[in-house]
Amino acid sequence: MHAIDLNSDVGESFGRWSLGDDAAMMASVSSANVACGFHAGDPSVIRSTCEAAAKAGVVVGAHVGYRDLAGFGRRYMDVDPRELADDVVYQIGALQALAATAGTRVSYVKPHGGLYNAIVRNTAQARAVVDAVKSVDPGLPVLGLPGSEVLRLAEAAGLRAVSEAFADRAYNPDGTLTSRSQPGSVLEDPEAVAARVLQMTTGEAISAIDGSDLLISAESVCVHGDSPGAVAMAVAVKRALDAAGISIKAFV
Amino acid sequence: MHAIDLNSDVGESFGRWSLGDDAAMMASVSSANVACGFHAGDPSVIRSTCEAAAKAGVVVGAHVGYRDLAGFGRRYMDVDPRELADDVVYQIGALQALAATAGTRVSYVKPHGGLYNAIVRNTAQARAVVDAVKSVDPGLPVLGLPGSEVLRLAEAAGLRAVSEAFADRAYNPDGTLTSRSQPGSVLEDPEAVAARVLQMTTGEAISAIDGSDLLISAESVCVHGDSPGAVAMAVAVKRALDAAGISIKAFV
Amino acid sequence: MHAIDLNSDVGESFGRWSLGDDAAMMASVSSANVACGFHAGDPSVIRSTCEAAAKAGVVVGAHVGYRDLAGFGRRYMDVDPRELADDVVYQIGALQALAATAGTRVSYVKPHGGLYNAIVRNTAQARAVVDAVKSVDPGLPVLGLPGSEVLRLAEAAGLRAVSEAFADRAYNPDGTLTSRSQPGSVLEDPEAVAARVLQMTTGEAISAIDGSDLLISAESVCVHGDSPGAVAMAVAVKRALDAAGISIKAFV
Amino acid sequence: MHAIDLNSDVGESFGRWSLGDDAAMMASVSSANVACGFHAGDPSVIRSTCEAAAKAGVVVGAHVGYRDLAGFGRRYMDVDPRELADDVVYQIGALQALAATAGTRVSYVKPHGGLYNAIVRNTAQARAVVDAVKSVDPGLPVLGLPGSEVLRLAEAAGLRAVSEAFADRAYNPDGTLTSRSQPGSVLEDPEAVAARVLQMTTGEAISAIDGSDLLISAESVCVHGDSPGAVAMAVAVKRALDAAGISIKAFV
Repeated sequence: MHAIDLNSDVGESFGRWSLGDDAAMMASVSSANVACGFHAGDPSVIRSTCEAAAKAGVVVGAHVGYRDLAGFGRRYMDVDPRELADDVVYQIGALQALAATAGTRVSYVKPHGGLYNAIVRNTAQARAVVDAVKSVDPGLPVLGLPGSEVLRLAEAAGLRAVSEAFADRAYNPDGTLTSRSQPGSVLEDPEAVAARVLQMTTGEAISAIDGSDLLISAESVCVHGDSPGAVAMAVAVKRALDAAGISIKAFV
Repeated sequence: MHAIDLNSDVGESFGRWSLGDDAAMMASVSSANVACGFHAGDPSVIRSTCEAAAKAGVVVGAHVGYRDLAGFGRRYMDVDPRELADDVVYQIGALQALAATAGTRVSYVKPHGGLYNAIVRNTAQARAVVDAVKSVDPGLPVLGLPGSEVLRLAEAAGLRAVSEAFADRAYNPDGTLTSRSQPGSVLEDPEAVAARVLQMTTGEAISAIDGSDLLISAESVCVHGDSPGAVAMAVAVKRALDAAGISIKAFV
Repeated sequence: MHAIDLNSDVGESFGRWSLGDDAAMMASVSSANVACGFHAGDPSVIRSTCEAAAKAGVVVGAHVGYRDLAGFGRRYMDVDPRELADDVVYQIGALQALAATAGTRVSYVKPHGGLYNAIVRNTAQARAVVDAVKSVDPGLPVLGLPGSEVLRLAEAAGLRAVSEAFADRAYNPDGTLTSRSQPGSVLEDPEAVAARVLQMTTGEAISAIDGSDLLISAESVCVHGDSPGAVAMAVAVKRALDAAGISIKAFV
Repeated sequence: MHAIDLNSDVGESFGRWSLGDDAAMMASVSSANVACGFHAGDPSVIRSTCEAAAKAGVVVGAHVGYRDLAGFGRRYMDVDPRELADDVVYQIGALQALAATAGTRVSYVKPHGGLYNAIVRNTAQARAVVDAVKSVDPGLPVLGLPGSEVLRLAEAAGLRAVSEAFADRAYNPDGTLTSRSQPGSVLEDPEAVAARVLQMTTGEAISAIDGSDLLISAESVCVHGDSPGAVAMAVAVKRALDAAGISIKAFV
């Protein structure tokens, strides 16, 4: 493999509150998951984030989430699937219009936070997301966890299902993410993260949280934009990939 | 004139709260101003309202408003024009996506409530709305008050500017609407409203609130959907127009 | 038993949206569960509801819920217990201040909707609610489902735990409520509801959804205020209790 | 004068979003204006801010604002006075309950942002704030701009009206604040700010934005907590006052 996609969550500021250094992240990644206003991102933040992505040649994806600003979309919500599908269509549409005014377009969909985690196993909510994406544009790929319900259903519905790995998150031996509430669940050393991404990209095994070998196969690697030292981490990853002759390239 | 457009505000329910009898209104009007989520309308309400409009052959417009659910978008907000433009783009885009899944499309834009009133005179906010519409689709007409800043700027920007009259609102002698806080500002007798719409449509003068004659020239007449007796009023207007041989037909 | 408390959810309007006929309900019940703004109820609605309760001699309780206006607090949310406790304190305090300006006071706490259901079994969230109530005022009783975690923990914490029954909801044979998603889960005939309340109040068995006998022991009976025919139902219940010589009297 | 009160806006984080270094500010000020959830501050942020204030011996005030998270309460909103009064009561009550759980209490009220500015001149909104404070507790002082409607009405209503000056804001020759949209409206040099506070505290004239002399008489001086270098500024002010033998002491 000579290329990998790096994606990062951006556009997560809201009104007076800033989060992440989107401009710096744009220099290292190929895909930008732009918050759509339900868990983060007001319309002006969304538009300026799309402008920054367009300028940097970074592809824009819709980072759709639960309607929960206070919880940043990280809390599971037992949303009715029909309403969830409508929420997702709404968010994608809003982003599409702002992306267009910024000279770019929405090229994929990645669920966020609590929704992302829920649809690894929750079939009804996973189907709601897939239905929503398909109804907006069947050409939009869906980004998710390998083995998740959402990717299985996306594929079954004729959508492109794109597996992603996480650069800075610990993995359980079964390939699921170690919960954020557990110690060691988030990696913070840029060089360790960079080495891990290189392993993921070149088909080598990584170490799961219990030390066992784990093979991660992914078309895209997520580099978080809001963790402490996010930019340093992204820069380290980019440097490691550059040194190995692997280009950073959007999956779309 | 053998045809007139009747428009009405619909899709103004939110979550557990219902407002208006949209299904009934759809039987009488030709254009539906669908709330876009900032002052009213959750995504499921928006989608089902678009479905009802599509089924009834009623044209869908984006009823964009201030971000103020608690105030139903009726309170003036001193929003920065750049942010307001982004808010408007966001709302139109969200509605476009939901309208598309419902088999229809957004065909015009009508500002709502406090925003509608503000941009009669507030040039900066009026320009923000016009800029937003133009950036989304320069083919979208803007509905507003005759003589308003927003229609003047829309025309100057090459957009189609559509004047509207109000079936159930009293007018000041200068053609502006009588403030809702004044007695007699809202007409409640269906037959009186129907007679007035007929006058507006056939070029006859109506009576302003002080009794003076006032000529109202409008391509569309707004019939409110949330006032008491809204449906009866719409039915009376439709019956009067039918009897006079005037067809009810969308302006787009 | 010669007296029973009837409680009802009120103050559930929000801004432009009205829900329920609070004024009418106040004439039939002894305790008013007033929404506190997180799932329903804006400050003006809350204040005027407290004024109506004060005028009718109805006791005011804090109807605390998840922060979810779009879902009316009916959807389970995986809120961190520490944050949930703070959310509950916030809501009680807000209501206390508005109740005081209306000449009354908060006399108990009843969780709402999704939260109410969650803390039947969810120990962590139940403890959060109990901790919150205790930290505000250990003299405040907590209203809940018999056998629920929240009542068990309230009692253990030295709070008064008040069991409630539901006038218009079907019961499973084990005493839990039949899910709203099941047919027959909500009773709609006022006379049947009134007869059932009489059985509950006099210690007779009621029929569970499968026809089996079920004894419900409760200090308070909830009469819903937002179901179709809520007022008629409350009137029928009051009439049946009056006829049987049972007075309607707040539990506090 | 041997003592002055320094107040600062704190508790302005919300959910995932942090703003300001409240812990550091608490070391320099005597009064903490705690956001109450309408423009900033979720219940957990409010509670932990009250805990920090209690620990530092800093007095807590209610920083009440318009219901506008997206605009941080900085945008004027044409809120009906009756609704505004209820909004203010709601916010004070919520803070009171959380402050009590943190071992402290609400000792004054300071309107925030757009509301603060509006009630310098807007009599109806100013009266709404005063009515709200009085209805909650007539012993609560109100902090505002010298010469403002809100202080005039507070005094007339028998409330203690406390004038405040701004450490880091430029003044017009008439004693009003220079609008943030004008260049030079916000002072950024800590030593210049410290020198100005010393002038204000000792009764010396400061320089208005046009260079003219201006006497500012205030019982409290506001040191912003969210400007760049806020902590450095507060430290410089505290050091200057310490060096001059002036103690920093709450006005209540």
